[in-house]
Amino acid sequence: MTYFTDIDKIKYEGAASTNPYAFKFYNPEETVGGKSMEEYLRFAVAYWHTFTMDGSDPFGAGTMVRPWDKYSGMDLAKARVEAAFEFFEKLGVPYFCFHDVDIAPEGSSLRETNQNLDTIVAMIKDYMKDSKTKLLWNTANNFTHPRFIHGAASSNNADIFAYSAAKVKKGLEVGKELGAENYVFWGGREGYETLLNTDMKLEMDNLGRFFHMAVDYAKEIDFHAQFLIEPKPKEPTTHQYDFDVATGYAFLQNYGLQDHFKFNIEANHATLAGHTFEHELHYARVNGMLGSVDANQGDPLLGWDTDEFPTDLYSTTLAMYEIIKNGGLGKGGLNFDAKVRRGSFEPEDLFHAHIAGMDSFAVGLKVAQKLFDDKVLENIIDDRYSSYKDGIGLEIVEGRTDFHKLEEHALGLKEIKHQSGRLEKIKATINQYMLQAFAR
Amino acid sequence: MTYFTDIDKIKYEGAASTNPYAFKFYNPEETVGGKSMEEYLRFAVAYWHTFTMDGSDPFGAGTMVRPWDKYSGMDLAKARVEAAFEFFEKLGVPYFCFHDVDIAPEGSSLRETNQNLDTIVAMIKDYMKDSKTKLLWNTANNFTHPRFIHGAASSNNADIFAYSAAKVKKGLEVGKELGAENYVFWGGREGYETLLNTDMKLEMDNLGRFFHMAVDYAKEIDFHAQFLIEPKPKEPTTHQYDFDVATGYAFLQNYGLQDHFKFNIEANHATLAGHTFEHELHYARVNGMLGSVDANQGDPLLGWDTDEFPTDLYSTTLAMYEIIKNGGLGKGGLNFDAKVRRGSFEPEDLFHAHIAGMDSFAVGLKVAQKLFDDKVLENIIDDRYSSYKDGIGLEIVEGRTDFHKLEEHALGLKEIKHQSGRLEKIKATINQYMLQAFAR
Amino acid sequence: MTYFTDIDKIKYEGAASTNPYAFKFYNPEETVGGKSMEEYLRFAVAYWHTFTMDGSDPFGAGTMVRPWDKYSGMDLAKARVEAAFEFFEKLGVPYFCFHDVDIAPEGSSLRETNQNLDTIVAMIKDYMKDSKTKLLWNTANNFTHPRFIHGAASSNNADIFAYSAAKVKKGLEVGKELGAENYVFWGGREGYETLLNTDMKLEMDNLGRFFHMAVDYAKEIDFHAQFLIEPKPKEPTTHQYDFDVATGYAFLQNYGLQDHFKFNIEANHATLAGHTFEHELHYARVNGMLGSVDANQGDPLLGWDTDEFPTDLYSTTLAMYEIIKNGGLGKGGLNFDAKVRRGSFEPEDLFHAHIAGMDSFAVGLKVAQKLFDDKVLENIIDDRYSSYKDGIGLEIVEGRTDFHKLEEHALGLKEIKHQSGRLEKIKATINQYMLQAFAR
Amino acid sequence: MTYFTDIDKIKYEGAASTNPYAFKFYNPEETVGGKSMEEYLRFAVAYWHTFTMDGSDPFGAGTMVRPWDKYSGMDLAKARVEAAFEFFEKLGVPYFCFHDVDIAPEGSSLRETNQNLDTIVAMIKDYMKDSKTKLLWNTANNFTHPRFIHGAASSNNADIFAYSAAKVKKGLEVGKELGAENYVFWGGREGYETLLNTDMKLEMDNLGRFFHMAVDYAKEIDFHAQFLIEPKPKEPTTHQYDFDVATGYAFLQNYGLQDHFKFNIEANHATLAGHTFEHELHYARVNGMLGSVDANQGDPLLGWDTDEFPTDLYSTTLAMYEIIKNGGLGKGGLNFDAKVRRGSFEPEDLFHAHIAGMDSFAVGLKVAQKLFDDKVLENIIDDRYSSYKDGIGLEIVEGRTDFHKLEEHALGLKEIKHQSGRLEKIKATINQYMLQAFAR
Repeated sequence: MTYFTDIDKIKYEGAASTNPYAFKFYNPEETVGGKSMEEYLRFAVAYWHTFTMDGSDPFGAGTMVRPWDKYSGMDLAKARVEAAFEFFEKLGVPYFCFHDVDIAPEGSSLRETNQNLDTIVAMIKDYMKDSKTKLLWNTANNFTHPRFIHGAASSNNADIFAYSAAKVKKGLEVGKELGAENYVFWGGREGYETLLNTDMKLEMDNLGRFFHMAVDYAKEIDFHAQFLIEPKPKEPTTHQYDFDVATGYAFLQNYGLQDHFKFNIEANHATLAGHTFEHELHYARVNGMLGSVDANQGDPLLGWDTDEFPTDLYSTTLAMYEIIKNGGLGKGGLNFDAKVRRGSFEPEDLFHAHIAGMDSFAVGLKVAQKLFDDKVLENIIDDRYSSYKDGIGLEIVEGRTDFHKLEEHALGLKEIKHQSGRLEKIKATINQYMLQAFAR
Repeated sequence: MTYFTDIDKIKYEGAASTNPYAFKFYNPEETVGGKSMEEYLRFAVAYWHTFTMDGSDPFGAGTMVRPWDKYSGMDLAKARVEAAFEFFEKLGVPYFCFHDVDIAPEGSSLRETNQNLDTIVAMIKDYMKDSKTKLLWNTANNFTHPRFIHGAASSNNADIFAYSAAKVKKGLEVGKELGAENYVFWGGREGYETLLNTDMKLEMDNLGRFFHMAVDYAKEIDFHAQFLIEPKPKEPTTHQYDFDVATGYAFLQNYGLQDHFKFNIEANHATLAGHTFEHELHYARVNGMLGSVDANQGDPLLGWDTDEFPTDLYSTTLAMYEIIKNGGLGKGGLNFDAKVRRGSFEPEDLFHAHIAGMDSFAVGLKVAQKLFDDKVLENIIDDRYSSYKDGIGLEIVEGRTDFHKLEEHALGLKEIKHQSGRLEKIKATINQYMLQAFAR
Repeated sequence: MTYFTDIDKIKYEGAASTNPYAFKFYNPEETVGGKSMEEYLRFAVAYWHTFTMDGSDPFGAGTMVRPWDKYSGMDLAKARVEAAFEFFEKLGVPYFCFHDVDIAPEGSSLRETNQNLDTIVAMIKDYMKDSKTKLLWNTANNFTHPRFIHGAASSNNADIFAYSAAKVKKGLEVGKELGAENYVFWGGREGYETLLNTDMKLEMDNLGRFFHMAVDYAKEIDFHAQFLIEPKPKEPTTHQYDFDVATGYAFLQNYGLQDHFKFNIEANHATLAGHTFEHELHYARVNGMLGSVDANQGDPLLGWDTDEFPTDLYSTTLAMYEIIKNGGLGKGGLNFDAKVRRGSFEPEDLFHAHIAGMDSFAVGLKVAQKLFDDKVLENIIDDRYSSYKDGIGLEIVEGRTDFHKLEEHALGLKEIKHQSGRLEKIKATINQYMLQAFAR
Repeated sequence: MTYFTDIDKIKYEGAASTNPYAFKFYNPEETVGGKSMEEYLRFAVAYWHTFTMDGSDPFGAGTMVRPWDKYSGMDLAKARVEAAFEFFEKLGVPYFCFHDVDIAPEGSSLRETNQNLDTIVAMIKDYMKDSKTKLLWNTANNFTHPRFIHGAASSNNADIFAYSAAKVKKGLEVGKELGAENYVFWGGREGYETLLNTDMKLEMDNLGRFFHMAVDYAKEIDFHAQFLIEPKPKEPTTHQYDFDVATGYAFLQNYGLQDHFKFNIEANHATLAGHTFEHELHYARVNGMLGSVDANQGDPLLGWDTDEFPTDLYSTTLAMYEIIKNGGLGKGGLNFDAKVRRGSFEPEDLFHAHIAGMDSFAVGLKVAQKLFDDKVLENIIDDRYSSYKDGIGLEIVEGRTDFHKLEEHALGLKEIKHQSGRLEKIKATINQYMLQAFAR
């Protein structure tokens, strides 16, 4: 059956078009920076927000109208697969992502849950044969079920540690089966509600052990996905161990895991941690840890994860700039971990929202590539730091100095020259690039 | 003498120009919505941030390099007037704003302070004869001097209440002398550090009395400026009485002052209060209280008043949309209550920053006017609320119903039809308007 | 049947007791400030958090183990009534509060919903005959059901306005039937998701009309409950119209409703609005608008409504101080709008949590009453503002001065004397009072 | 001369005392946990806030009245030394801390600055001979002077890197000369104002080089102080590299510095980073990185560094609990990096404030020690994590399992038993311990 009626394959028709189901800026075939937009912007649809989320919030019931909601149980799971591939095809998106429980319902036992998964995974694999859409990453949802009440790999209950391991083991097998390019860990319950009853050291040690076992098992089954940690500071727990990229990096180094993991960076999680999205991308990038992106946005005036579709062109531009500087995302992609608003409950809003997000990143890519090609920021930085290219600066960078020599240099200084940081002018320049990118 | 060398009068040269001292989008003569940009965008330079601020912050000394800083005392005050009118002329800005202490130093007594003011006011009046730049508003700085340690009109010390009154009295006289179109009250110390030692009722009553006396005195001297309250939630005090527009509106109504005041709304103060800039403008507008604007922006990740020059085009667009819906700002204007960053210490950064701000509001105006002309949001709202145009909706709006009739209507309802709020599509549309506004 | 086994009526056994089900500080019969604690601290149990909440959060399913969860539909509703009155009796709490949907399930039509309500209300009325526990307030839940997707009385859909009116009409009738002392309005969906599609003026006007109709209907049916508005700034919507007490007060004045309403002030909502709990209480108090209290607490590092049981003794002390200054809460009370943490899923946690909250307010009451009796803060304030008791200060307060006289006074001032605000010493004093209150 | 008149040496007189200059809870000779309070609570006075800070804020001039302010230049510096040792003696505090510029003014050249320092350091050394007060730590202020406009060791200007090195070299020499037990690095300008003009990689690499050179030089001069990094997320810069302890730990590991540094943790900086004070202490402790403490507190509703004297007994209790669990602070101490409020401008407020802080930590120590002695939290944790003491839990902890065995265990699980986290009861218990600690 057809779930999304009246919507043909979505096409690029340019900003002037009034067709609501057309991309205005994203043109998969357009070449930017030597690659097609489709290759550059490895967009993924998030199965959970698009096919299972119902629009409920802490103060209200679900509102979403979904054509597949007449089904239940495994029939519902199957209908969602059908709807998903129809959606991927119409949207023309190269990737998707899922948690285990998004695609198949839990059974009455772990064994039955795994059987449910096997059934749906086989169906998805079948659909993938005729689809250009691939699996960017999968993951195990170790946070929704009440059993994860006190954590998963960091639970105070060893049975839950084991249960979590079993679910990740299955997840790695599923990832291999479906050719996932990455495997993600989001520790929604790996943290604490209160320090007063928490053994943080044991919990972090156990997390370290858990990740090592996951690395070992992936090697054992010859699954070469990139492992990704997704930082988030708080919500649902009061404090989560993967607070931000830097905290995750401290953890990985401390447990000798830094060569096996990169980060999956979500814009809204950055905001909640008190950082800009581009900060988290940049910090990961310069430390060689930028893996993939959860492309969404938050509301800086709200203190919870709003997971909005990304439409802020400043944010998409600066994010794409980091990705360009990183030489692309490698195996990673841009996953729309974003949900339509509770009030945008009609099926067509799923299209409007993804189009909004994809168009916004297309604009971001074009503006960022132009900034990059023109060396706008590169030249500013090159000039600002030129003192490290010779003299005492070069000695510092090359490690050929010490406090004695530096003091001697400082004592000899007559006048120290600074130059303005020119932030206002740089911001105006970004605006000019943004507005000019589509001027004809 | 010339303070700003190598900078001729700044002109519009379009986005493609590489002249750093040219407007790219602001063209004073360009007509938008039936008015010239210059008429529409009543820009004002803030004397304090541009001519007296030194770049110090709580952890660092001043950094600004200003050609007039070789002077001191009244000579410095006079040099600043010369520099100011040179700056206004080169920038081509129609208005300026000041606090009393910005233009003239305090003397050793209130009498001497007033004499200093008189000298500089006469000088300014003289300069204004040959300048097109007018006074948008002036105000009394009743917060910097240690005497205002516990408040001004809300001080626990009656002498300070009197001192504050004397300064505002002088301010009203100065405003009349220079033809100010508005008079602003910002209660930087009108609030509390702690409730534990505060008589909030007496302080608010005194504020009410103070404002009534100000109204009376302005009438007495035939000064017809619009009185404006500038809300800010906190900083410098822990809690300020004019927290936001709604709080100020509650106060004005409570003390019978609502017909004598409007609001001067600052973007960064809105952010600190947990609101968007456009929310504050909108709330004031629909209550008939929108007076003037302090055009700047904050950093949503920082918790203090950063007073940055406005460059966010979303913010300028939505602000201009409110102003257009308001039929303009009347006597009000767009005052750049914004300071160059501490690292942007060169005189030319003052130009870059104002150009960035003026260009950003020019873009905002053009995009907002196009949205308005095309009835983009108007039509959405018209359609969304159409149920109030007839039937039970019309009865509600016309006050012809009650709980009995409404219950009867509700009991008879078969199916309630909702439509999607379409937020994602609306946001994409805003982006398209923004990018198209300068497409040729 | 008995739902809470092994728990007898809870008694006061003092801080040294190791009985986990005993009050350590709350002794209903102890006299404080001339009243018994029971009379002073009009505690109420919130039906929703204690009998219907399941412990789900945006990232996880329900965890709560409740003995009545084996039932469903109306049987569940009845079991909850039985459990509730058992709980009230064992805890010895004088009041409870509910929303319509907490006590009875919605039916397939409004008519059936009302019938369900009638059945349960009759049952509750019957239980109340043999119980000392009374109804502090009831309210209509006009936010959970999807029909309220775009608001209730501020919906863009006139049918929903009518539906909301029908529910409030019924709520007023239920309140009268059960002898409610107050009636609460919490506008969970009365606000906006985005200004872009919102007619704020129409929505606020409709809210004003709605409240007037509610006032009229209560008068018609001779229901003399105090009407209360409960402010909250955001969540679930992006921005709610009753942002804080001041915003609500502006609204009430603007629509001529200030004589018919007071405020129900929630601690956690204060925090979300950027205020302390005591600020909101104080502001309402000095404006004669303090009605009742939702006694809970938030986590200042988390940006959503955590609704924790109140245990912060600073907060309970300062809240009780405001209540003492208000001469008590009149018809109002201290409603525990608080939920046990998701990890505190056992039935006995409901007792631990209420005991924690009641004990904390008992401590707050005793410390605050001692501060009040000793005039600790009163004397500080009396001294600080003494300049308004004679001379120019008295003239100001009595309205016998103007800007001329004040200027004359200011010009004549030789030296202005200030005194320290002594905040550090005051805070130390509060600590001493807190620690001494239970020293024997 | 005597600077602080009418104040004798401050003594313990118990909570009931009305002597304003007496400790109510801090009794240096009282034994707690086997040590005297004086030994346990290694309090330090912060030279900057107590002897040089003038009470100015971004919107107001200095207010502080200080008896030594009649002096200037080196005379002022000397008067401050006299006043400081008088203050230390009267307060009975074992330690103090300073930045170079706190004790001696900058000269017209680095050489002259160093000479000024030498003069004052000699004077301090002389005073220390007759005083029991020792130097907890010193540091170089590499943030106030305009030369640090773009950073110090992370400046874009190599001359500034050298200048910073020269200042730290001198600081290490001064520390050695005065027997400092620690040496602190606070990177107030080590961060960025905007990523747009920043080479974060080069800046962090340079910071790493700088720290290695500092380590080398301390070794060279045989200075065995503990090196401490003081994290702060933002302010004065937009983003600082030492955001929080975890971020600093990632940095130290990345640059091979983790064996040479620990952390100096400030309460208010924790708040600004979105953490509780106890979280930062705990995280540092379990990673072996807890060095010293900046004992102050922030206002969770304000977004800047308020540096208040610590009076929150919850915070002091939980902080002392971490310190007890750490076996004390070793070379570290409790430095009052706290300033009297701008309104507390009288000299005696310095005493009130320090007494408030010391009393609060004395209470915290006693309550925490009692909790520790009674194993209140230890027992809860022991019980909660008991599943890791045998069976599959023990295998996990001992590294004797893998995903195969864990899956097998999980598949065999019949029922998973959880226990409540009991947060509400634990919080009530903390209250009882707090109130009982001083019950007699």
